[in-house]
Amino acid sequence: MSKYAIGVDYGTLSGRALLVDVRTGEELATSVYDYPHSVMDTALPSGKALKADWALQHPQDYIDVLKNTIPAVLKESGVNPKDVVGVGVDFTACTILPALKDGTPLCFLEKYKDEPHAYVKLWKHHAAQEYATRLNETAIKRGEEFLKYCGGKVSSEWAIPKVWQVLAEAPEIYKAADRFIEAADWIVWQLTGRETRNACCAGYKALWNKKNGYPSDEFFKALDPSLEHVIDEKFGRGVLPLGAKAGEINEAAASLTGLCVGTAVAVGVIDAHIFVPAVGITREGEMLAIMGTSTCHMMLGSTERLVDGICGVVADGIMPGYYGYEAGQGCVGDHFSWFIENCLPKDYYDAAKAEGINIHKYLRKKCESKKPGESGLVALDWWNGNRSVLVDADLTGMLLGMTLRTKPEDIYRALIEATAYGTRMIIETFNEAGVPVTSFFAAGGISQKDPMMMQIYADVIRMPIKIAGSEQAGALGSAIFGAVAAGGAKGGYNDVFAAAKAMGKVKDTVYYPNEENAAVYDKLFAEYKILHDYFGRGANDVMKRLKKLSAASGE
Amino acid sequence: MSKYAIGVDYGTLSGRALLVDVRTGEELATSVYDYPHSVMDTALPSGKALKADWALQHPQDYIDVLKNTIPAVLKESGVNPKDVVGVGVDFTACTILPALKDGTPLCFLEKYKDEPHAYVKLWKHHAAQEYATRLNETAIKRGEEFLKYCGGKVSSEWAIPKVWQVLAEAPEIYKAADRFIEAADWIVWQLTGRETRNACCAGYKALWNKKNGYPSDEFFKALDPSLEHVIDEKFGRGVLPLGAKAGEINEAAASLTGLCVGTAVAVGVIDAHIFVPAVGITREGEMLAIMGTSTCHMMLGSTERLVDGICGVVADGIMPGYYGYEAGQGCVGDHFSWFIENCLPKDYYDAAKAEGINIHKYLRKKCESKKPGESGLVALDWWNGNRSVLVDADLTGMLLGMTLRTKPEDIYRALIEATAYGTRMIIETFNEAGVPVTSFFAAGGISQKDPMMMQIYADVIRMPIKIAGSEQAGALGSAIFGAVAAGGAKGGYNDVFAAAKAMGKVKDTVYYPNEENAAVYDKLFAEYKILHDYFGRGANDVMKRLKKLSAASGE
Repeated sequence: MSKYAIGVDYGTLSGRALLVDVRTGEELATSVYDYPHSVMDTALPSGKALKADWALQHPQDYIDVLKNTIPAVLKESGVNPKDVVGVGVDFTACTILPALKDGTPLCFLEKYKDEPHAYVKLWKHHAAQEYATRLNETAIKRGEEFLKYCGGKVSSEWAIPKVWQVLAEAPEIYKAADRFIEAADWIVWQLTGRETRNACCAGYKALWNKKNGYPSDEFFKALDPSLEHVIDEKFGRGVLPLGAKAGEINEAAASLTGLCVGTAVAVGVIDAHIFVPAVGITREGEMLAIMGTSTCHMMLGSTERLVDGICGVVADGIMPGYYGYEAGQGCVGDHFSWFIENCLPKDYYDAAKAEGINIHKYLRKKCESKKPGESGLVALDWWNGNRSVLVDADLTGMLLGMTLRTKPEDIYRALIEATAYGTRMIIETFNEAGVPVTSFFAAGGISQKDPMMMQIYADVIRMPIKIAGSEQAGALGSAIFGAVAAGGAKGGYNDVFAAAKAMGKVKDTVYYPNEENAAVYDKLFAEYKILHDYFGRGANDVMKRLKKLSAASGE
Repeated sequence: MSKYAIGVDYGTLSGRALLVDVRTGEELATSVYDYPHSVMDTALPSGKALKADWALQHPQDYIDVLKNTIPAVLKESGVNPKDVVGVGVDFTACTILPALKDGTPLCFLEKYKDEPHAYVKLWKHHAAQEYATRLNETAIKRGEEFLKYCGGKVSSEWAIPKVWQVLAEAPEIYKAADRFIEAADWIVWQLTGRETRNACCAGYKALWNKKNGYPSDEFFKALDPSLEHVIDEKFGRGVLPLGAKAGEINEAAASLTGLCVGTAVAVGVIDAHIFVPAVGITREGEMLAIMGTSTCHMMLGSTERLVDGICGVVADGIMPGYYGYEAGQGCVGDHFSWFIENCLPKDYYDAAKAEGINIHKYLRKKCESKKPGESGLVALDWWNGNRSVLVDADLTGMLLGMTLRTKPEDIYRALIEATAYGTRMIIETFNEAGVPVTSFFAAGGISQKDPMMMQIYADVIRMPIKIAGSEQAGALGSAIFGAVAAGGAKGGYNDVFAAAKAMGKVKDTVYYPNEENAAVYDKLFAEYKILHDYFGRGANDVMKRLKKLSAASGE
């Protein structure tokens, strides 16, 4: 009798459920639900305006993903809910919300409906930069050890700057919040009725360390006296390892999803880290890039090294027995969406329509025939700041080399190339830090849909690129953890490596570097690096000064 | 009995005739003719492809301007051709063509129809950069005095680099050409049957100097032995001063235009310099910017100073008795056309259509409500290289500060602001060289049509801006020179200053700087200047290296 697991993968714009055969990894059914509120970056649902750099979400959208997608995959597959042995969940992070002690989000309360700080702060909410900056200054002054594990700098995207922003800008919300909780853990709470915290989010986003725990109360007090007991008051100190069982589906969740009461639920995982077992990575040096609106880079290492500007190194943080390294690029697919929404002329849409293809495909066709270097353009891929290796949300985009002959497809391709140069910067930084990158995997929507982009990446980084075998690798990874949460006795697995081996997949297609292109890209990357360092490492802080002028103009 | 003059103004995309009352300056009729071949920058009429940086035109279009517009203004005004006492012509420059000794353009010959070098090289043809670079090297090595009069550097847009390119790349065309002639002088030749050369084109574009004449044969020989006698063989040494009469309408021209045989024709003038009398400038320190696809800056000075990167200082080159200074920006309106053609999303067109306004107006509406600095963007206005003060056609555009919230109108406004910063760089360079700019006039299409842009300029340069009183100031200036060519005895004028006083015009509207905006623009200009010097003065020659890579990719 076959057994099944469901993985639920929460992305930036939608959530997806995938129903998988636990023995074979066969994917029987999938269902996607777009968040009705999407990303709120200009206004609340009430119309109240948001300032620059804000990015919120609505937690009702997350519940509605469960309500819509799980019944849909059960129905489509025809699988009996009794044969679903486990559920796993992965989520963008740090995506964090304030809640009451029963789990009710503060934004569900009528009195806080018009209060931006009561909503979920999405990973790409960058308005806490001021608090990140002050946190880093204090940590450096005090010589805090946790800096060693996060590339020397805490990002404005992480938990503590976001929570501190709430305290500083909306103290009544901070006071009213019994908990600040990652959306990954909040959804597990909705499924099981039990609040848990997972090591992946805690380690990569909240300064938690297996050996040392959270930073000291003295450190938090040095930030702001009101934060002294923030961990005990708003987080709690219990953290569960990856692969653990968080609990079981309760009555309410069973009625919401159609799953059976008692079905095992895995602890939450970040949506990037979850891909590692899904592509079957089990060795050090194998870097995985998960490419979507942004890109996360994951790598296992057998030693703990300090790498500049990484997002974190967490023992057992990706797979047990290894140090898990994470780096990131804050804006990848978002560049192309921005470009298509804001920069693409009417006649391109008309031509695409006439050819009966979508606009992305039309643009790719126009780009494909171009040679590296032909456009004369180079860009810095910082439309959403720089995550690795500079860890600086106040950096902005740059495009250089335009002439009156520059065409839209030239700019589109330059943006693609810029993200590839950003990836090469990360790889070179790992190599220089003594954590050599020996092979490269890609997952995420872009890796599946855009062969041209994958070829450009292979040419730029001068390594073959292997592609995730599932188009839903995130959800597949979560299903793997769901199967592990169920345990071998219930028809799942006792061990993540065994589960990953059975259920993880890589495609037959591999992208190999073209030597002729790679030689040109070496030259272009050299230019990128000069500009990267000039604008990113303090020689000319024009981007920061312009951001300040822009902020001042709104006052 | 009223007397009339006709000015014919040849721009980049069209030619215009204006019929003016010689006493009052009243404009009775105007007619525009768009060049059917426009700017040929990708292919010849035959379909033969052109390389990057080429920009050609077809001389038949120039003839057709005469044929269409002069009869049209005569008809519209009802003026008897006998009462038209003089015709003046102004033209873009250096816009130069190879011709037989009877004036026939080589591209009219069947055997050269498919030869790019047989056509007119438009002012913005930049493919002669290599020759300009070598010319400058040789001139510096030899300590040539003419460098003093052209800002220390000869532009690839000027006559000698363009002619040298013909010799080097199409020696049979060079050999077949009896003359290389500015389009301004070629049109006067068509009208009068007599070849003349005007001091304005010769002085500003062909290294001619009133005192010293052309550079020596030794200098030309040092460039290339075949060029030793280029002046005597292809140009001739006779040069007529501005305001002189070139000749009279001949039989052929009378039958083409409907004018009477014997009507006075003035020597040609460059389309920028012609504006100075048209706005009534008669004193030193009054800078005039003629703003269209590109911008030319004109100023009279009583002393001869060396100013970095100016296009030229020519004694009596604009008005008699003064040193005429010229500077320029190679790409102004062209930026906005490029932007609208290549970067503007479909929904903006739809919205403009729904509002029933054109797309430029719609964009301006979106921009107007923005504050200086609000967008966080700054651009370098080098999509067509930099004319003044860097004199470098190999520089390219740059845009910096983009985020995912950047809107098309932000980029549009940043391009406008960048051209204003470019103008301020020119003004500051004049001031530092001891040729102070004390007031500022604007003419050309943009000055008439775009109050927002003129206000931004006033705020950026911190000076009031007066606007040309005629929407056809170029053609009006040519009509003024036509009236002077006729002379007082025939009902015209003997003196340009008297003609300019009677016929020249400025509007009542003056744009005054807004102090609050100006203070922000001081900061933004400081950023522009840092980037201008970093990318433009050798600290990072990335733009040139990218251009070389781009050129190599086509090989």
